Amino acid sequence: MLFFENDYCEGAHPSILQKFLDTNLEKLPGYGTDTYCESAREKIRQACGCPEADVFFLMGGTQTNAVVIGSLLKSYEGVLAASTGHVSLHEAGAIEHAGHKVLELPQQDGKLSAAAVDQYLKRFYQDENHEHMVFPGMVYLSHPTEYGTLYTRKELEDIAQVCRRYQLPLYLDGARLGYGLACPETDVSLEDVARCTDVFYIGGTKVGALCGEAVVFPRKAPAHFMTMIKQRGALLAKGRLLGIQFDTLFTDNLYLSISQNALRTAAVLKQALREKGYPFLVDSPTNQIFVILENAFLERLRTQVVFSFWETVDENHTAVRFATSWATRMEDVEALIRLL
Amino acid sequence: MLFFENDYCEGAHPSILQKFLDTNLEKLPGYGTDTYCESAREKIRQACGCPEADVFFLMGGTQTNAVVIGSLLKSYEGVLAASTGHVSLHEAGAIEHAGHKVLELPQQDGKLSAAAVDQYLKRFYQDENHEHMVFPGMVYLSHPTEYGTLYTRKELEDIAQVCRRYQLPLYLDGARLGYGLACPETDVSLEDVARCTDVFYIGGTKVGALCGEAVVFPRKAPAHFMTMIKQRGALLAKGRLLGIQFDTLFTDNLYLSISQNALRTAAVLKQALREKGYPFLVDSPTNQIFVILENAFLERLRTQVVFSFWETVDENHTAVRFATSWATRMEDVEALIRLL
Amino acid sequence: MLFFENDYCEGAHPSILQKFLDTNLEKLPGYGTDTYCESAREKIRQACGCPEADVFFLMGGTQTNAVVIGSLLKSYEGVLAASTGHVSLHEAGAIEHAGHKVLELPQQDGKLSAAAVDQYLKRFYQDENHEHMVFPGMVYLSHPTEYGTLYTRKELEDIAQVCRRYQLPLYLDGARLGYGLACPETDVSLEDVARCTDVFYIGGTKVGALCGEAVVFPRKAPAHFMTMIKQRGALLAKGRLLGIQFDTLFTDNLYLSISQNALRTAAVLKQALREKGYPFLVDSPTNQIFVILENAFLERLRTQVVFSFWETVDENHTAVRFATSWATRMEDVEALIRLL
Amino acid sequence: MLFFENDYCEGAHPSILQKFLDTNLEKLPGYGTDTYCESAREKIRQACGCPEADVFFLMGGTQTNAVVIGSLLKSYEGVLAASTGHVSLHEAGAIEHAGHKVLELPQQDGKLSAAAVDQYLKRFYQDENHEHMVFPGMVYLSHPTEYGTLYTRKELEDIAQVCRRYQLPLYLDGARLGYGLACPETDVSLEDVARCTDVFYIGGTKVGALCGEAVVFPRKAPAHFMTMIKQRGALLAKGRLLGIQFDTLFTDNLYLSISQNALRTAAVLKQALREKGYPFLVDSPTNQIFVILENAFLERLRTQVVFSFWETVDENHTAVRFATSWATRMEDVEALIRLL
Repeated sequence: MLFFENDYCEGAHPSILQKFLDTNLEKLPGYGTDTYCESAREKIRQACGCPEADVFFLMGGTQTNAVVIGSLLKSYEGVLAASTGHVSLHEAGAIEHAGHKVLELPQQDGKLSAAAVDQYLKRFYQDENHEHMVFPGMVYLSHPTEYGTLYTRKELEDIAQVCRRYQLPLYLDGARLGYGLACPETDVSLEDVARCTDVFYIGGTKVGALCGEAVVFPRKAPAHFMTMIKQRGALLAKGRLLGIQFDTLFTDNLYLSISQNALRTAAVLKQALREKGYPFLVDSPTNQIFVILENAFLERLRTQVVFSFWETVDENHTAVRFATSWATRMEDVEALIRLL
Repeated sequence: MLFFENDYCEGAHPSILQKFLDTNLEKLPGYGTDTYCESAREKIRQACGCPEADVFFLMGGTQTNAVVIGSLLKSYEGVLAASTGHVSLHEAGAIEHAGHKVLELPQQDGKLSAAAVDQYLKRFYQDENHEHMVFPGMVYLSHPTEYGTLYTRKELEDIAQVCRRYQLPLYLDGARLGYGLACPETDVSLEDVARCTDVFYIGGTKVGALCGEAVVFPRKAPAHFMTMIKQRGALLAKGRLLGIQFDTLFTDNLYLSISQNALRTAAVLKQALREKGYPFLVDSPTNQIFVILENAFLERLRTQVVFSFWETVDENHTAVRFATSWATRMEDVEALIRLL
Repeated sequence: MLFFENDYCEGAHPSILQKFLDTNLEKLPGYGTDTYCESAREKIRQACGCPEADVFFLMGGTQTNAVVIGSLLKSYEGVLAASTGHVSLHEAGAIEHAGHKVLELPQQDGKLSAAAVDQYLKRFYQDENHEHMVFPGMVYLSHPTEYGTLYTRKELEDIAQVCRRYQLPLYLDGARLGYGLACPETDVSLEDVARCTDVFYIGGTKVGALCGEAVVFPRKAPAHFMTMIKQRGALLAKGRLLGIQFDTLFTDNLYLSISQNALRTAAVLKQALREKGYPFLVDSPTNQIFVILENAFLERLRTQVVFSFWETVDENHTAVRFATSWATRMEDVEALIRLL
Repeated sequence: MLFFENDYCEGAHPSILQKFLDTNLEKLPGYGTDTYCESAREKIRQACGCPEADVFFLMGGTQTNAVVIGSLLKSYEGVLAASTGHVSLHEAGAIEHAGHKVLELPQQDGKLSAAAVDQYLKRFYQDENHEHMVFPGMVYLSHPTEYGTLYTRKELEDIAQVCRRYQLPLYLDGARLGYGLACPETDVSLEDVARCTDVFYIGGTKVGALCGEAVVFPRKAPAHFMTMIKQRGALLAKGRLLGIQFDTLFTDNLYLSISQNALRTAAVLKQALREKGYPFLVDSPTNQIFVILENAFLERLRTQVVFSFWETVDENHTAVRFATSWATRMEDVEALIRLL
């Protein structure tokens, strides 16, 4: 069986496991106050070019979105997001469970535009009834998006500018940030992300870690953010589990270098799909490839390959996703191509 | 100044105030356990043809929606509603504040269709990731809708049938129910509403009361609904305030007979607007009329008439709402027509 | 049957009903923006000696507590209250439903002391684990308390001083404030309440109104408080219902003058109970009298008088509450005394 | 420096790390559906003697308590717990954040009694105002308690019996369950826990795992519990991280055998403290020892040993906690004893 279902089907990068072994019986304080967490924070600050950044480690993406958004919004505020955003669709209502509306905006290939955000905000404040409505309190982007697409530096800057004009924090969900930063087609660096946003997270779960996301406030975290993490059930006792992983991923540029494998293998697969004439649902430059298959072929392929259902296209066609990861072997990609 | 801003700009029907006077110093138990509440409940049960119905009195529409939806949904469920629904747009996020997502569906003139509900549910359960999504837990309709439009009996029955197939409660927001039931164009009776839904409310605030909505569970309320009302800050100490009003409104058919005034005055205004060639935003058969005005004329008219901004149509045109009520005087309508 | 069950068993002061009649068909804007609300606000500002105060009208006590506390606390904060406080015990968990813990403190006859608050805060910040605990974010007092007792001016000032030292807002629940202010034994004026607290409410429901409480921020309300009211289902469409009542209650000192009736009748009843040798559960100077009855006598008395169960004292004795109100007739008190 | 601060200062049992290494590049499905999770579930079912049990893996204790309690309670219910319970004090209000009150009961050495629970429930239903109060919806125990004490089998059975009489689920927080089950003084087995409770968790974080707690519903989990986990941000993408750990811990009785080390080392330390005449705050038979130190000595000891502040006893004395774990070395205990 070939696995292209997602980018979290393997364990952790071997250097992480080695580091677990090397440090296992060291006695460390809990809750993220150990030396590995501190070292990881410092390396992330440097990588972001933000010596003053506040950095926290959480366990997973939905948790991180719920904690960050829930902690930053006032009770009468909601979060603006693409209608295809992870927070809108695939977090089982975690944002609403925290009391906030996801204000869904139209998107293009998973991306918001500065113009769409600006128009929403302008209309909101022009609406004479807006005090009876949910106030926009934050803008949420994912980069790469749920469709594997990327913002350009200019697009990020434009959205950031709109946010600053309206004094809205800009939050970037970087569940797959490595695959965005390492993409040959991007002009967005980690420093750009830190400069344009008010808070973002660097995804570990999908980029080489067993679990974990690093939340970065390039300037300043809200007061008592640690207590808000605890209150939301997201404070890990053995913070070392996260500190060691991010310390390793941010040593010798490992985070970016392992991301390149996902991009290289995805590029080969994408090229093959294009040559074989498969239509794409969306043109993604990163590690997720969305392609449209005939249902009969899809069913045959399923007997040999694991991949993801994405959406029904028509009676006879379905969009599916193939994902590569930091651990995907080129020989598996070649085997998949032979089946297409 | 002429007032057509909404249907809640006057006080209460005079018989209600008279009843307040007549009963003022009677000593009554609190929290809805007094004889007037009980009498009102019994009259409502009869009017609905539901001798077993559970009836509760709350203060206002947003509160009622938040209490009913919040009490009926399980934590992992959301409520399906038209994207123009009051719960979606104009309740400042009360449903999300209670922890639940409003799952917005496309609408036509403010109405949901059985087909749209069915399609959403079918796709939801077909989606292989649906356990990571908000489960649909209830369907919300408003009747009349926010655009003054009405469901036919057949449309209600069809939606009810879909709901029963999926075991979803159907909830009808009747903030303006009187204006729907008294409409000459409708074939929907109060009995029909009670038969098709699992819970609905009969709006008082906009139909002759100073405040108050009567929540009806035609079959059975959830256990401890009274405590859930209390917990949500919606239990009135002097329940008599609500009981007396609904007892009066459901004596001698007052609720429907006063509703007719709103419909008669609206019909005259609508006819005049049509004759003068104003385009309508939507064709409403009830007491709210949505018409498109040129901005220059709108500004002039505003110096003599109070009406509601609805939405921007284009650079030079705006949709506005004129509303009549149980208390609107025909002479005011005639004065308004002279200004058009 | 004689009614001493509570202080909300009658309707409204007759001047309020008269004002409803006089203004009934005036067409007024909604949501508390009408002239009666504005006039009531201005009169309340004057009575409080706070020309800059922000004043809002809500429907009832539990609602007011939930809206005020929920709006002012940050998500990681709780409210300090006496273990006998209304928010602790008798609001069906409305504060917790809004996401916040009630941090219960020991009390004396329903009252908190500055020392107890100070000690709690000192210990909290000394506790090395306090970042894993609920932060105290506000102090809640009721005045009169749930036991009818009153703070002295000095006691209020001392608590206020502790609050300011820790930068905690002080909130006073004045559900029965009139009965406190009009008490011959008090040295606390409305100006004192406004000076010592950051927010408080003036109870209408129990002091002459059909419903309604006036929330006063002597200095400044939080931004978008109106939207937070709406979001919590507490914004009344016909704000006139509340504005007219408070405008009337704050005209010609009506609020205080009608409160005196409750105190006069309670004093007569209390004196009679004392003379007859009944033990008191607590010595209350206001309109609620807590007395201990033998169960056999209690059952007999219940056939002729309605009063409230308070708590079980022992196998043979029960504490009960007799309450008087602005509308209690002295002849009913005399009739009750004859039964004792 | 000697570390006796807590039982989570080391990494994971070496067999767990070895298993991570052995399985690292296996491609596994996410969200707890992999073979290691399934194998762990099956072993846990066998260890509990519950072939039908539903088992879920979560990340940490506060999270588990919030997810389980929040998922099982109805909105108008709260959870009964000892006033010293972890959910009452040290979870930063996670239960209240989920909307529920912790109804605190008096305790003895951290334990609830069946009599105290029964009395609370009896009084609650006798209280004529109980519909205005938070309904008790669940009983929460910790075993071992926060003071290291243990329930006897009889005590557990008695509490279970009260719960069943009132149809309340009984939930046992087993953050340190291994240290309870392995204690020479206990007569409570894992089968007893499964038999007496409706849901409990087997703590991994403090007993040999890097992270993770196994939630066991001996009979049946609530519908859609997985979606409720997701919604609360507690669903791990790489479920293998938890499955592998519990699969290892429940192989060859590892969970209990490593727990014995904590108990053996604690017993030696406790014996030494007793011999040296230190007073104990509480007499704990498990791996946490609560002892009272003079402040001057405490400060000196702190330069060589890490331990936990527990509570202030008086001006000159402080209660502190020494904890041992599955990984504590006897030589460190001996070194500590030399310093006492």
